[in-house]
Amino acid sequence: MLVVPKLVPKISNMFQVAGLILSFGLILSTSLNHQPLQSAVGFSILGYIVSNYLIPRAAPVFIRKGLSGKDLSKVGNPVLAEAIGVIPAITYLFLMFLFIPFLFFKFLITETSGGGSRDSGHTVLEDVGSLFPHNKLASYLSSILCLESVILLGLMDDLFDLRWRHKFLIPAVGAIPLLIVYYIDFGVTWILVPKFVRQLTGWEQTSIDLGWLYYGYMGALIIFCPNSVNILAGVNGLEVGQTVVLGVLVLLNDLCYLVSPDSPAFETHLYSACMLIPFLGVALSLLKWNWFPAKVFVGDTFCYFSGMVFAVVGISSHFSKTLLLFFSMQIVNFVYSSPQLFGLVFCPRHRLPKFNSEDGKLYPSRANFKEKPLKKWVAAAMLLLERFKLVQLTKKDGIIEESSNLTIINLFLVWFGPMREDQLCSALLFTQFAVGLVCLVLRHTLASLLFGYDNLFLKFVS
Amino acid sequence: MLVVPKLVPKISNMFQVAGLILSFGLILSTSLNHQPLQSAVGFSILGYIVSNYLIPRAAPVFIRKGLSGKDLSKVGNPVLAEAIGVIPAITYLFLMFLFIPFLFFKFLITETSGGGSRDSGHTVLEDVGSLFPHNKLASYLSSILCLESVILLGLMDDLFDLRWRHKFLIPAVGAIPLLIVYYIDFGVTWILVPKFVRQLTGWEQTSIDLGWLYYGYMGALIIFCPNSVNILAGVNGLEVGQTVVLGVLVLLNDLCYLVSPDSPAFETHLYSACMLIPFLGVALSLLKWNWFPAKVFVGDTFCYFSGMVFAVVGISSHFSKTLLLFFSMQIVNFVYSSPQLFGLVFCPRHRLPKFNSEDGKLYPSRANFKEKPLKKWVAAAMLLLERFKLVQLTKKDGIIEESSNLTIINLFLVWFGPMREDQLCSALLFTQFAVGLVCLVLRHTLASLLFGYDNLFLKFVS
Repeated sequence: MLVVPKLVPKISNMFQVAGLILSFGLILSTSLNHQPLQSAVGFSILGYIVSNYLIPRAAPVFIRKGLSGKDLSKVGNPVLAEAIGVIPAITYLFLMFLFIPFLFFKFLITETSGGGSRDSGHTVLEDVGSLFPHNKLASYLSSILCLESVILLGLMDDLFDLRWRHKFLIPAVGAIPLLIVYYIDFGVTWILVPKFVRQLTGWEQTSIDLGWLYYGYMGALIIFCPNSVNILAGVNGLEVGQTVVLGVLVLLNDLCYLVSPDSPAFETHLYSACMLIPFLGVALSLLKWNWFPAKVFVGDTFCYFSGMVFAVVGISSHFSKTLLLFFSMQIVNFVYSSPQLFGLVFCPRHRLPKFNSEDGKLYPSRANFKEKPLKKWVAAAMLLLERFKLVQLTKKDGIIEESSNLTIINLFLVWFGPMREDQLCSALLFTQFAVGLVCLVLRHTLASLLFGYDNLFLKFVS
Repeated sequence: MLVVPKLVPKISNMFQVAGLILSFGLILSTSLNHQPLQSAVGFSILGYIVSNYLIPRAAPVFIRKGLSGKDLSKVGNPVLAEAIGVIPAITYLFLMFLFIPFLFFKFLITETSGGGSRDSGHTVLEDVGSLFPHNKLASYLSSILCLESVILLGLMDDLFDLRWRHKFLIPAVGAIPLLIVYYIDFGVTWILVPKFVRQLTGWEQTSIDLGWLYYGYMGALIIFCPNSVNILAGVNGLEVGQTVVLGVLVLLNDLCYLVSPDSPAFETHLYSACMLIPFLGVALSLLKWNWFPAKVFVGDTFCYFSGMVFAVVGISSHFSKTLLLFFSMQIVNFVYSSPQLFGLVFCPRHRLPKFNSEDGKLYPSRANFKEKPLKKWVAAAMLLLERFKLVQLTKKDGIIEESSNLTIINLFLVWFGPMREDQLCSALLFTQFAVGLVCLVLRHTLASLLFGYDNLFLKFVS
């Protein structure tokens, strides 16, 4: 029998109304003090409320239309709506549209004679046109365009199960406007050379120009971020949870710059914060519904979308290399998964942990090599991994018969033993946050040692 | 038994290869002579080829996923893929992304020292940044964003059957970036007052400022165009055909300006042509597959998308009022339909013409008023319409029992008698083109008489 959990609970209307009033207040107050961050918080609250309102109402429609899947890690395998992440993603997009006038508010009303009345006539409008930071608007629009493309792609994927090579390439096409705006407005393709490299090689240059290679690097980032979020998945709450942790980490980094308004990186980090704060609002609402025991599934769309949010912010706010530090967990998971992703080790269709209905805990899932035995050197490498406790193997007569699947999720279960789903998710998210925090501190301490320079403090240490 | 027509015919590879070479040649030649129109033609050919390649391959996937419908105007009611229009629409979007560097080519390579080598270093890039027409890029990006939003909306509609009020509002939200860019860069909310109005009222002003009302008008245009294309539908080839005719008409209008490079409206009409030429490419490929006997259905997505293409072009190229002239057919159909749309006259679920399998012709479909009789004054109005042969009524004892459905499609069948589906579609498209052509001529002749001024010839006649 299909078990469809009841979705629309009694809503705490009071909280909703209070939240709405607060959000509108924050958004509109921007017209008084020209602080886009305030609007961002307002839009974040609004995003949470709208998305939280829409998700339980959209879920039954999605199920009716065949967008549903069974939750294999629960007793009775309840049927949940799939691809629900498209709701918060589209909510975010439309909020970002509405955000535009508030983000650029001070430029839109610069030329009034006061008294609340807008001066009439052409001249004022011409002034607005010439003073307006078109390059920032173009950057903002290209960012949203990029996000919208990836939602469209994700939706096509959720609907039609696109092939791997299509998924792989289309984010890069969607990112063309972003890269062109980067080329036009910033165009910095230089990277700093670490001090020790300079000392070792005897170079005198403090930076080298990667030229077109740098665009290749950004393209790779755009392909990597969405896909890396998408493969760290399969546990209730993990898909969204990791993006919330990422969002908080990047925001903390932004705050380092925002506390000093004189920093040359102030504007770009303000931009980053304005993109991320509303994102956190919609992501948290999705997390609420996707947290153990999940009422809805997130779907590929949200994974692509959220990964792209970070790629876009990293590129347009010019901290893509710092961003990669925060993606450590995803990078480790990708590297660790790569033997299975690239076919060196047999990869079963699903690599989710195995649910044991007796104790309600998750156990590491396994890949069986009976039909497709490992090559000799791969087997040797797997044995080496086993020695460092990086994989759990089952051997018979010296031949590897089974191995735990190569995901960081299974690795946690190998290390810490079987866990309940929410414990596993919390452990993963906590680790991600801790690692990210360490990276953040290292970024602003070690970086100045390595490069002789940190853009946060704006002084050359060397 | 379900009859699924065979979809992938033997492809004339030679033509494809020749077309691809031609399109790449045209696109790349832009780097030599900086003519974006050439690239536009190249992208148009490329769009035709790509979309024509994808449509027959996507159709079976769409049918498998439940996106299909029966063609009721054919013997045996074959099952066709629905919503296929999303393929050419997305193709168009991605082509427009790729178009960006070619559209702005002369700005991107302005500062080279010649010899094919791009000067290295920061200074050149800074020059590019300052010379680049960011406002045009912002306008272009907001246009594409608007189109992408409407595709996303259309897709949600094709999938989840959104409610009427949602469909109605969301295009307006998607258009926010476009309207903001209009506000910033152009901001003209003045309209010319026709000469006779001035003479009648004794006003001395030649123009009045509509202010915020003008933004309301543009919002209405953005809601009207997509929806008006969507309700002139139901005959094989008509949905796409009407947009092809519209595209040709607007292009003809653009050509009037493009022949004189000194015209102040040259740039905006160049922009319009650059948007529409690639659109015609993808639309023609869809028309090929949707023409009688249709192999695929277009779906709401394409109707919304194509209507929005025109709204966007009209607004960002500043000829939205001229655009409405070309939409005469759609406006007439909307006005004629409105008694049924707004519930004054009973509206059956489908208003398609009725297919007679014996002679293979279409007959006007009818609304039956037995259950919901007409109000007195509505009945009187219907009788008046009948007198002008604008409706076909069936009466019994002086009471109207049935009426032909109020669409221009049924009206054509009332006027000219039963027709085969392709004849009906051709008649409608031909009429649309003829009416549009007359409007085009009137626009550039009568306008100068009415307003004492035509921006084409740039002289005040009065």
